[in-house]
Amino acid sequence: MSHYYRLVVSCPDRVGIVARVSNFIAGQGGSITEANQHSDLTSGRFFMRYEVVAESLPLDAEGFREAFAPIADEFEMQWKLTDTRRPQRVAMMVSKESHCLVDLLYRFTAGELDCEIPCVISNHDDLRSLVEWHGIPFHHVPVDPSDKAAAFAEVERLVEEAQADTVVLARYMQILPPALCERYAGRVINIHHSFLPSFAGARPYHQAYERGVKLIGATCHYVTEELDAGPIIEQDIQRVSHCHTANDLVRFGRDVEKGVLARGLRWHLQDRVLIHGNKTVVFA
Amino acid sequence: MSHYYRLVVSCPDRVGIVARVSNFIAGQGGSITEANQHSDLTSGRFFMRYEVVAESLPLDAEGFREAFAPIADEFEMQWKLTDTRRPQRVAMMVSKESHCLVDLLYRFTAGELDCEIPCVISNHDDLRSLVEWHGIPFHHVPVDPSDKAAAFAEVERLVEEAQADTVVLARYMQILPPALCERYAGRVINIHHSFLPSFAGARPYHQAYERGVKLIGATCHYVTEELDAGPIIEQDIQRVSHCHTANDLVRFGRDVEKGVLARGLRWHLQDRVLIHGNKTVVFA
Amino acid sequence: MSHYYRLVVSCPDRVGIVARVSNFIAGQGGSITEANQHSDLTSGRFFMRYEVVAESLPLDAEGFREAFAPIADEFEMQWKLTDTRRPQRVAMMVSKESHCLVDLLYRFTAGELDCEIPCVISNHDDLRSLVEWHGIPFHHVPVDPSDKAAAFAEVERLVEEAQADTVVLARYMQILPPALCERYAGRVINIHHSFLPSFAGARPYHQAYERGVKLIGATCHYVTEELDAGPIIEQDIQRVSHCHTANDLVRFGRDVEKGVLARGLRWHLQDRVLIHGNKTVVFA
Amino acid sequence: MSHYYRLVVSCPDRVGIVARVSNFIAGQGGSITEANQHSDLTSGRFFMRYEVVAESLPLDAEGFREAFAPIADEFEMQWKLTDTRRPQRVAMMVSKESHCLVDLLYRFTAGELDCEIPCVISNHDDLRSLVEWHGIPFHHVPVDPSDKAAAFAEVERLVEEAQADTVVLARYMQILPPALCERYAGRVINIHHSFLPSFAGARPYHQAYERGVKLIGATCHYVTEELDAGPIIEQDIQRVSHCHTANDLVRFGRDVEKGVLARGLRWHLQDRVLIHGNKTVVFA
Repeated sequence: MSHYYRLVVSCPDRVGIVARVSNFIAGQGGSITEANQHSDLTSGRFFMRYEVVAESLPLDAEGFREAFAPIADEFEMQWKLTDTRRPQRVAMMVSKESHCLVDLLYRFTAGELDCEIPCVISNHDDLRSLVEWHGIPFHHVPVDPSDKAAAFAEVERLVEEAQADTVVLARYMQILPPALCERYAGRVINIHHSFLPSFAGARPYHQAYERGVKLIGATCHYVTEELDAGPIIEQDIQRVSHCHTANDLVRFGRDVEKGVLARGLRWHLQDRVLIHGNKTVVFA
Repeated sequence: MSHYYRLVVSCPDRVGIVARVSNFIAGQGGSITEANQHSDLTSGRFFMRYEVVAESLPLDAEGFREAFAPIADEFEMQWKLTDTRRPQRVAMMVSKESHCLVDLLYRFTAGELDCEIPCVISNHDDLRSLVEWHGIPFHHVPVDPSDKAAAFAEVERLVEEAQADTVVLARYMQILPPALCERYAGRVINIHHSFLPSFAGARPYHQAYERGVKLIGATCHYVTEELDAGPIIEQDIQRVSHCHTANDLVRFGRDVEKGVLARGLRWHLQDRVLIHGNKTVVFA
Repeated sequence: MSHYYRLVVSCPDRVGIVARVSNFIAGQGGSITEANQHSDLTSGRFFMRYEVVAESLPLDAEGFREAFAPIADEFEMQWKLTDTRRPQRVAMMVSKESHCLVDLLYRFTAGELDCEIPCVISNHDDLRSLVEWHGIPFHHVPVDPSDKAAAFAEVERLVEEAQADTVVLARYMQILPPALCERYAGRVINIHHSFLPSFAGARPYHQAYERGVKLIGATCHYVTEELDAGPIIEQDIQRVSHCHTANDLVRFGRDVEKGVLARGLRWHLQDRVLIHGNKTVVFA
Repeated sequence: MSHYYRLVVSCPDRVGIVARVSNFIAGQGGSITEANQHSDLTSGRFFMRYEVVAESLPLDAEGFREAFAPIADEFEMQWKLTDTRRPQRVAMMVSKESHCLVDLLYRFTAGELDCEIPCVISNHDDLRSLVEWHGIPFHHVPVDPSDKAAAFAEVERLVEEAQADTVVLARYMQILPPALCERYAGRVINIHHSFLPSFAGARPYHQAYERGVKLIGATCHYVTEELDAGPIIEQDIQRVSHCHTANDLVRFGRDVEKGVLARGLRWHLQDRVLIHGNKTVVFA
């Protein structure tokens, strides 16, 4: 089976970027299977993602990077080249609610998520058996409210030990300390159980129930220091009515949450999500 | 063609309400074509809506009301009985944007809205020709920012003159004075161009664009004194992406707005919307 | 915690049904928590579902049935009274694809499906470990194409032994013999992986891909002798585009299928689905 | 305000197409505002659409075409270059139902449809006043069932006289003769009031009602000789239930139809729809 290189670029927009990049790839005989570009007219910034059949090139990933670097410099690119043979390592963090984790583990098993899952970390021990049945190490790191720093030091150690590229908060229900957010900026994905910016903070379904909204939602976003305010990757909603109690909203919400998180994570793992200030470009 | 009585009730929930009401109707030989009930377990309040074929009863609407009043008293009901032969009178208020008005006038013409439209009132003269082509009187009431009271006095006079049961703010873009809101409480319907409670206030699509949301929405609600905070009747959304400018969001939003407003108004006109505190029960 | 009786009725429509039934319940002091009615104007048939707090009545289920029988006779009702203390027993049948089963087992565990699952039956042994991890017996009944009758005799024996009220074909991929369909009429639920009546039969996602549709769907329906033609309980769709291969459609479809099947089964288990000829009334 | 050239290409996929085309444009100093590509892996065909700011180029449209022709030949391209200063001319055809026409005329007026509408042709005279109020010529061409050929000869003459690039069947309800379909292949857009391939042919909402589906839909497609079988541009659906009569389905369907047709037409007018056998690539 083929593997691919994915070239992801953002840079100031100007004439000739696509020509230069596509020329470079064609000059190496590279076969492009998917190409996306976006010119943001407001900010004057340009974004692109190219997927190239690795076997069509005479270069390995490192060779590609070296050869491409002068072009990147010339156009002041922020860029990366990933190789699909080296899947990302994703550490999952959960609390007691299992719906997102069950869903992600199913998708992982079914081959929908191109990653490795070196570990699951939780502040409760409830989901150990589920995780271990999937053959994945489970770490129980209780969070003592009077000494959260100790817990998060341990979390950070475990994430580092796992050599995680990405951390997924699959209903972790704890707020990560700013230093951790910053260290893993753009690599921590959270699922918030409301249609942000509505109902940020705690108990969003109960807030939604009190307000009498006719739709509830969920939001997958990158974690930043400001709670529930990071760049949004994906959102979705579910219709509700006066018939539904706050508990029904919670139940419906579980389905929305898992769909939204799974799509957001899949796109992230395929290098389809480019951060642009506090927004995202998603080449879905 | 048949006409109908619609009996709409809300009262404290207790045993025997449905039995008493349905017995009363059956005792008169009444043929029920649609029946809805809702018990709100949180508040202990009960809601019902019955649609009865008028010809199946020996009573006219007034006779029905008299005969029913003792039951209503016994169960402490808030209630009304409407007769579909007497359609509501709906005064529309607009500004310059025509999309909601065009849509409502089409639906009115097509028989989707069971009402009369005695007039359209606007703070601009732009939509006169459109309205008059439909054979509906158009009133231009400019709103001078330095003397809004005069304008709203004229608006109130026109609404009263039109004997309007319901006022629809079809993108009117002006804030009604509190006294008017109170006088027509539960009878003024607004379309807000965001998925409330997100992005209340001005320029919601631009707020949404700045926040980088992946869905935009619209909300149809009853107007109360507090801006964009009244009971929600209906909401809907449209998916957007990084490809879309703020202007695209405005364009998409027009479609969502008109659908949401049309559904909300239709349900209101059919007595399907019952206000319950700051929420609604919608027997859609 | 309270338990409930659910009274589900269909009968020829005429004046006084609701009055008689609600009088009966009120006369016993019964507290109704949910009530739904539907008059089908085309066929002249009436449908209702009442949920009554069991503790509010002086009758047990059998006593209720006896006391209610004369009313049922008078109105020529097809009816049943169920008691939520006696959850349905659901036998699941699967093949190799696990997505629907994983989803249903999660929901079962989370308390979303009010039932017991006495067993899972499969023509392959692949999902044994998953099922047994949930503490549910797994039966492997291979289907030899040259002697299907033997396999289905064994299936029928297992279903009977399990005292199953309902059979769910959670992507079973085998056609049940007519006798089994008839014996369990209205109690076998299938998920078909297309938006019926489009793409009945085999490989529907590949049919959809060939036709170039822009939406794919799934359909949950009762099984009848005619393939993919039974009463539809629930359907849903997912948007697709030219970017998506037939395999992508299969992947998207899995999500649609599991949502549709879960909703259909939940409604069935709550006695919300009433069969009406080849259609359904769903009091969702 | 800027105008744009749109270059739309389909050709056998091979290495170097994007490089050659983007080099050509960059070599002229062309500023690309939107670029889309698609490689169909099944058929080995490549599709692209580039939108270039006209003022950024030293060439006019004819000059562009001449300079580009050798590249097109080399890569065996089917291609066209359009200039947004020369909007398409769209002849609309309608019958008695106005919902799609009202919607398209609103969008035309609001600037959502970048085209001219030289005329509306109808087999009935009902919509004359509506059309003429918009300042558009209306032609009444009755279709005598015993001599359809005469009517369609007149239709063809009017379409030709209007110099129409595109013909929109906005619920025309007559089947165009094969010769006309062929002459305007890929340029006649129809809205079919079902979710094709379900319910092709007559009275699809009534077919849907009889089958008891839980979703109804509409399909915008190019017209080919085979009825309701041409390449699909866009589809959408609306949820329905047992509460809804066949007439309700018709009413809901109107909303779905107008949305689907408006989106399909808009994309067609922006050269976003590329026909690929009996399917479409839509760069929406």
